[in-house]
Amino acid sequence: MNSRKSIEECRADFPALKRQRMGKPPIYLDNACTTLVPKQVIESIQEYYTEYPSCSGTRSRHWFAQEVNERIEGDPSKGIKGSRQMIAEFINAGSKKEIIFTLNATHALNLVALGFPFRTGDVVLLTDKEHNSNLLPWLKMQKAGRIKVDFIQPDAQDNFDLDAFEQRLKTGRVRLVSMAYTSNITGYTIPAKAITQIAHQYGALVLFDGAQAVPHQTVDVQSLDVDFLVFSLHKMCGPRGVGVLYGKKELLGQQPHEEDEIEQVLAPVIQGGGTVADATYHDYTLMLPPDRFEAGIQDYPALIASGAAVQYLQQLGLDRIRDHETSLNHFLTEELLNRYGDTGWFRIVGPQDAAQRGGILTFEVKRPNAPGLAADLSEKNNVMIRDGVFCVHAYFNEKFGPQWTRPIAHSEHRMVYRVSCYFYNTMEECRVFLETLDEIFKERGYI
Amino acid sequence: MNSRKSIEECRADFPALKRQRMGKPPIYLDNACTTLVPKQVIESIQEYYTEYPSCSGTRSRHWFAQEVNERIEGDPSKGIKGSRQMIAEFINAGSKKEIIFTLNATHALNLVALGFPFRTGDVVLLTDKEHNSNLLPWLKMQKAGRIKVDFIQPDAQDNFDLDAFEQRLKTGRVRLVSMAYTSNITGYTIPAKAITQIAHQYGALVLFDGAQAVPHQTVDVQSLDVDFLVFSLHKMCGPRGVGVLYGKKELLGQQPHEEDEIEQVLAPVIQGGGTVADATYHDYTLMLPPDRFEAGIQDYPALIASGAAVQYLQQLGLDRIRDHETSLNHFLTEELLNRYGDTGWFRIVGPQDAAQRGGILTFEVKRPNAPGLAADLSEKNNVMIRDGVFCVHAYFNEKFGPQWTRPIAHSEHRMVYRVSCYFYNTMEECRVFLETLDEIFKERGYI
Repeated sequence: MNSRKSIEECRADFPALKRQRMGKPPIYLDNACTTLVPKQVIESIQEYYTEYPSCSGTRSRHWFAQEVNERIEGDPSKGIKGSRQMIAEFINAGSKKEIIFTLNATHALNLVALGFPFRTGDVVLLTDKEHNSNLLPWLKMQKAGRIKVDFIQPDAQDNFDLDAFEQRLKTGRVRLVSMAYTSNITGYTIPAKAITQIAHQYGALVLFDGAQAVPHQTVDVQSLDVDFLVFSLHKMCGPRGVGVLYGKKELLGQQPHEEDEIEQVLAPVIQGGGTVADATYHDYTLMLPPDRFEAGIQDYPALIASGAAVQYLQQLGLDRIRDHETSLNHFLTEELLNRYGDTGWFRIVGPQDAAQRGGILTFEVKRPNAPGLAADLSEKNNVMIRDGVFCVHAYFNEKFGPQWTRPIAHSEHRMVYRVSCYFYNTMEECRVFLETLDEIFKERGYI
Repeated sequence: MNSRKSIEECRADFPALKRQRMGKPPIYLDNACTTLVPKQVIESIQEYYTEYPSCSGTRSRHWFAQEVNERIEGDPSKGIKGSRQMIAEFINAGSKKEIIFTLNATHALNLVALGFPFRTGDVVLLTDKEHNSNLLPWLKMQKAGRIKVDFIQPDAQDNFDLDAFEQRLKTGRVRLVSMAYTSNITGYTIPAKAITQIAHQYGALVLFDGAQAVPHQTVDVQSLDVDFLVFSLHKMCGPRGVGVLYGKKELLGQQPHEEDEIEQVLAPVIQGGGTVADATYHDYTLMLPPDRFEAGIQDYPALIASGAAVQYLQQLGLDRIRDHETSLNHFLTEELLNRYGDTGWFRIVGPQDAAQRGGILTFEVKRPNAPGLAADLSEKNNVMIRDGVFCVHAYFNEKFGPQWTRPIAHSEHRMVYRVSCYFYNTMEECRVFLETLDEIFKERGYI
């Protein structure tokens, strides 16, 4: 054991965990949606607003602006590492210029969908469980006649099927593979490195939606050789309002005009202040990346605090975070399967082995009036989990049939719930969740 | 005088004004770029992060999420007005559903440029002084062959020329008029109501870029009958990372499919989580506005704090804010013209009458080595103003000729500087600016 803060000590860093309602603390198990925020990150945001609440120095030349700029872009002469560089190092990007800040991961995905120079007929290949944010932008492009969207089905064990994938790449006109690195439903992580290797072998590029992966395990873009990666700081103890689009330098463009680019280069979709080097009434020249992709005044406090967030996670260590999540998930999985595994109406969605699901445990309840458990858990004991379809409508509609959310009889109800842990969660919190769930099941007459 | 806080008392609300560097306070005169932030807004952001740092309740059903949701969307049963409603009331929108939150005003403008169903050959009419954010999106569309961009020139006094405007609408194929309500260079406010009346008379829609207007004067979208309005909270004491797109209800779409819409309806450009009611692997149905335009997890603390910002401005009163700015600008204008008006190398850009320029005073210095004044002002006495072209490259390139920023000799240098006041600025701050500028002019041998 070294002198680093222990996982248990971390809880003290999270002000929200100190709250009470009905004399009880919060039990926050909705981390796959959004994580809580440590005081180090909050203080970083507050410092901006109280000390130097201005634009960044790339746009203006004064005291406050310089203070903002050096915290985002760094200042080697003062030994200050900027948050953009910290983010780059967190995913082992080759350069901070490959880090584009966006409003969220959804916007980052849309920048690729709308900006990549697809040729008509190009196929974008997804898995069967993509979040709406990695489905809708492509469906919209398909409706516009720009691309064709295709899906790769998992094998019988619901694992990624590398053979079928390679077959599809051999025979299809796949231009881009765009997939969730870790599923937000099942927590399952695809064999990312093998996927990029095969895709590249057949001339396709690869985008990973890392929203559920980057906060929980080491994601090394150079080792993976992935072309684009998106993720969101709000899922990793960071500020709200910051997504990241990583793109390989050669795909982001190095010429002042979009038209001068080679065929694989992303065009900046959103244009305006900060993206252009010069303009006339008829034409304009672009800034180099990442500026050309960051239009308008940015959310500077959030960009600064993004650095504080990744520093916080690095200090903890992603291995320790993952180990802790897995141990909680093992406990939850075993308890739930022991209690309800044989009832016929309770099912864990995705791999049964907790080790394959990180901090995510999603379960289906097929009982009369199955909806409402999440609200009940919150009402009773401040236990916060998530219900619904987790923005993956297509998958559940396919699995459960059309109109499944509107059955004719209450007895036909089925509902899906997701518990998602992060490093600050405890075994005791898991126990309260389990006991409260059991209580509700009893009240509803399920058991 | 009523019991409202006086303009002078407000300074105490701004933590950044308490800073010191070199034993001197900041003199922040870069408000047209970004304003400082009062503690009421900072506390609102901090409360989110420490008390309920989660997603909003429209997406999840638990304690924290409900607390977020009621602060943004309101809860009539608890008598809570949400920030979206506060923003709607601030500009007198008919409904909070007409308020779309975006990352910034630039993104808001791009949503219209990229989402409006233009017909090939449609003209978008701008003024000669549009910010890059209201120029580049249109030039990009013009390059793509979708629209034609045209410009209306001011009259000999540099005022908006309503006759020429009407003539252009009579003869041109103008589909949309898109103009800065108040210029970020000159502070000049166009005759907005007359413009919408004329435009509508000839079947054109109107978008106003209100970034420099909404923080400084009452902008009433219903009275103006404007079709779209964009502005940014960071220019009005609000959080960073929040722009607003107001659109008339009938222009935002009320049908679940984009294709079903009538020809004047904005399509949502960015798609993903939160924008769709349902999806399959092949198709999707949209949420109603504003949800369909707000893709992915939003910057909830900033959205909440937007309400605190407009409440703060309302308590002060926009009339008082404007009066105060104007009195500062009168003083600055008179002093500068008295001192340098006859030198031949000093010129105020835009109307000479301060009353026509709100809080903005932009001046040109045509002297050897004219660049660098902004940095010098900051270095000497913490006076923060702005230099450059204020993201209006096209206008200055046209006025000053190509390559004006790269003259062959230093003696050919010319540079433009902008001082911009807000209600918390004082006469004493203006005096320090004037004295420091004078000192620099002397050091440089200009006087």
